[in-house]
Amino acid sequence: MWLGAHLDTLPTPALTIDRTTARRNAERMREHCRTLGVRLRPHVKTHKTLEGGLLATGGTRRGIAVSTLAEARFFADGGFDDILLAYPLPTARLEECAGLAQRLEAFHVLLDRPEALASLRQRPLAHGKRWLVWLKLDCGNGRAGVRPMDPAALELARAIANDAPEEVTLVGVYAHCGNTYGCSGADAIQAIARTTTNAVLGFVAALRQAGVPCPHASIGSTPSCSHPIPEMSQLTELHPGNYIFYDLQQTQLGSCQPQDVAIRVLTRVIGHYAHRGQLLVDCGWTALSLHGAGAGRGPQGCAAIDGHPELRLVGLTQEHGLLEHADGRMDFGKFPVGSVLALIPYHACATAAMHPVYYVHEEGQVVALWHPVRGW
Amino acid sequence: MWLGAHLDTLPTPALTIDRTTARRNAERMREHCRTLGVRLRPHVKTHKTLEGGLLATGGTRRGIAVSTLAEARFFADGGFDDILLAYPLPTARLEECAGLAQRLEAFHVLLDRPEALASLRQRPLAHGKRWLVWLKLDCGNGRAGVRPMDPAALELARAIANDAPEEVTLVGVYAHCGNTYGCSGADAIQAIARTTTNAVLGFVAALRQAGVPCPHASIGSTPSCSHPIPEMSQLTELHPGNYIFYDLQQTQLGSCQPQDVAIRVLTRVIGHYAHRGQLLVDCGWTALSLHGAGAGRGPQGCAAIDGHPELRLVGLTQEHGLLEHADGRMDFGKFPVGSVLALIPYHACATAAMHPVYYVHEEGQVVALWHPVRGW
Ligand SMILES: Cc1ncc(COP(=O)(O)O)c(C=O)c1O
Ligand SMILES: Cc1ncc(COP(=O)(O)O)c(C=O)c1O
Repeated sequence: MWLGAHLDTLPTPALTIDRTTARRNAERMREHCRTLGVRLRPHVKTHKTLEGGLLATGGTRRGIAVSTLAEARFFADGGFDDILLAYPLPTARLEECAGLAQRLEAFHVLLDRPEALASLRQRPLAHGKRWLVWLKLDCGNGRAGVRPMDPAALELARAIANDAPEEVTLVGVYAHCGNTYGCSGADAIQAIARTTTNAVLGFVAALRQAGVPCPHASIGSTPSCSHPIPEMSQLTELHPGNYIFYDLQQTQLGSCQPQDVAIRVLTRVIGHYAHRGQLLVDCGWTALSLHGAGAGRGPQGCAAIDGHPELRLVGLTQEHGLLEHADGRMDFGKFPVGSVLALIPYHACATAAMHPVYYVHEEGQVVALWHPVRGW
Repeated sequence: MWLGAHLDTLPTPALTIDRTTARRNAERMREHCRTLGVRLRPHVKTHKTLEGGLLATGGTRRGIAVSTLAEARFFADGGFDDILLAYPLPTARLEECAGLAQRLEAFHVLLDRPEALASLRQRPLAHGKRWLVWLKLDCGNGRAGVRPMDPAALELARAIANDAPEEVTLVGVYAHCGNTYGCSGADAIQAIARTTTNAVLGFVAALRQAGVPCPHASIGSTPSCSHPIPEMSQLTELHPGNYIFYDLQQTQLGSCQPQDVAIRVLTRVIGHYAHRGQLLVDCGWTALSLHGAGAGRGPQGCAAIDGHPELRLVGLTQEHGLLEHADGRMDFGKFPVGSVLALIPYHACATAAMHPVYYVHEEGQVVALWHPVRGW
């Protein structure tokens, strides 16, 4: 019912996506990958929408990474294929994985433990299908994954490749360099991208020497892929996800320019509190999340106010936000009750997760409603 | 499909509610109110479910507070009535308010600005209905509301009551003492409850003296209502909400005992990382929120691990959590991959907001699935 509406008329809070910007972000990343000669396997966890997946795959619907089985099912139902569940194999839900593996041309799983491989072996696929397996490497991110210099890594890769070639195939190695988020500056980000790339490529070379072919090597994160390094051309895939929307955090990290951020949360002024110099707005943490409030910054870190660098978000409860003027002199006349402000969220993935619908616009006019999948 | 299942078999992450505990919390608060001789108007924003509303109203479905129009519609559709939108009147969505006012026996709105009253006057209700209006008071919480000592407060109350008695009725005054969350200790909480109660009662008395009848006076917050003070008996209503689940924050505030917390997030161990002494679990911020991470505590503040005071949540990304042993000596044998842990969330409202379904159990067996409303 909101198709064609102007953004200013939407019920607030409202998550909006500038489609032109998102498309440009998607195309820029595809261009980076074309230039490098690698494939882009966009991670869809930021938006979790078919439409976002279409933009990110350039319309092919082929080759995505997902973070949950709910996403896997949703995208499979939406005609997507070549889906990698980029998450430690959920052995408690192996039947769901098997279902996806049987019905898709390519449903890839990822693991980092011999026991997970054993689970796959206990549940072989039918009709000549093989489990398509990626080995998760931890190249310094310190979350899931086996460290490439750990002898267990090579052993596990070999077991995936050789133990039951009729049932299980080693497709590739996958390393997520989430540690780029702790960096300040493009140089530091590129240094991590380089370390990760070299570690992954070194591991693949060692595998090759050991007679274990490993066709694919994928790394990614939005910071590292937004300023790709030449070494990445020796990989076969990149798997960033956030770049389609970008956000305040990515701007601060230098992954993008402010004009590349496609996501906003629209909010209305709902009160003036002159004695406190504060505006009340109808956006609380249910519409924004509390991401960005860490490191002692409080709500101020959670969003910037588009076009109003002089305003600060100083309060954030379930459905309310409080804005102040940086130097305390709020000009209430500029922000009448009912007027709409646009918040630029710190973390697009977290903010998008709070919204059952995204209002997608071009030049301020709603052109589509996107409905994300949730849950697990 | 999960009815009858044991909690250990649920797909994770899973939000679970212990119905016995929630019911006991609901009954204890009803008992507090009976003892005080005031009405309980439970706020439903914590759970946003019809079933939670039924428990909280003792099955009457009458007399609730909501924080969004989406909640108002959802509960109205579910047979609830006497619903107060405890939020500054959304004048941009007055038609929706009017629709609810026409269809319900009592749909109450709240305001703190003369302009909001003017909006109501420009949109009178039909069929002899009047707008049922509460004046929002700010007794030190510093969010919405007019301060009771501000002459504008009395003026606005008088205008609501007198300007158009055929169209608008002054039902009561409403003060939310959210500032109790900044307290440490029951004494400090009760001091704020006392200040708020006295400020509200003083205002109502001043109104009476000025010839303006104001039948109702409501204050609330879970910390203040969990240890009610005798003065509250002079109010007509209390409006806490969180108490039905309670959470880690409320335990820390002293609002409840650990055994009163009805909410958990179940998560499975999905990896062992011996070189870091860490367990990886399948609960990230999409299942827990980042609430509690403030004040420099990081993810550790976001949840306690039920039955395992020795464990700390030290990492939280979109779908992953990392646990460490407090003194670094993780006993991995105690937590095999696949085993289920229960996280006690810091902020139940925030955690519940992340889940499309709640698994409600009695003694570990699922007895109901609750589906919350979202959006605005
Ligand atoms: C395993 C994995 N792959 C890919 C990505 C995408 O990276 P980004 O969000 O930096 O674009 C993530 C993000 O957390 C991830 O966890
Ligand atoms: C206006 C209003 N009323 C009532 C409540 C319920 O208070 P609590 O969450 O402390 O139970 C809240 C909570 O934020 C609120 O904002």
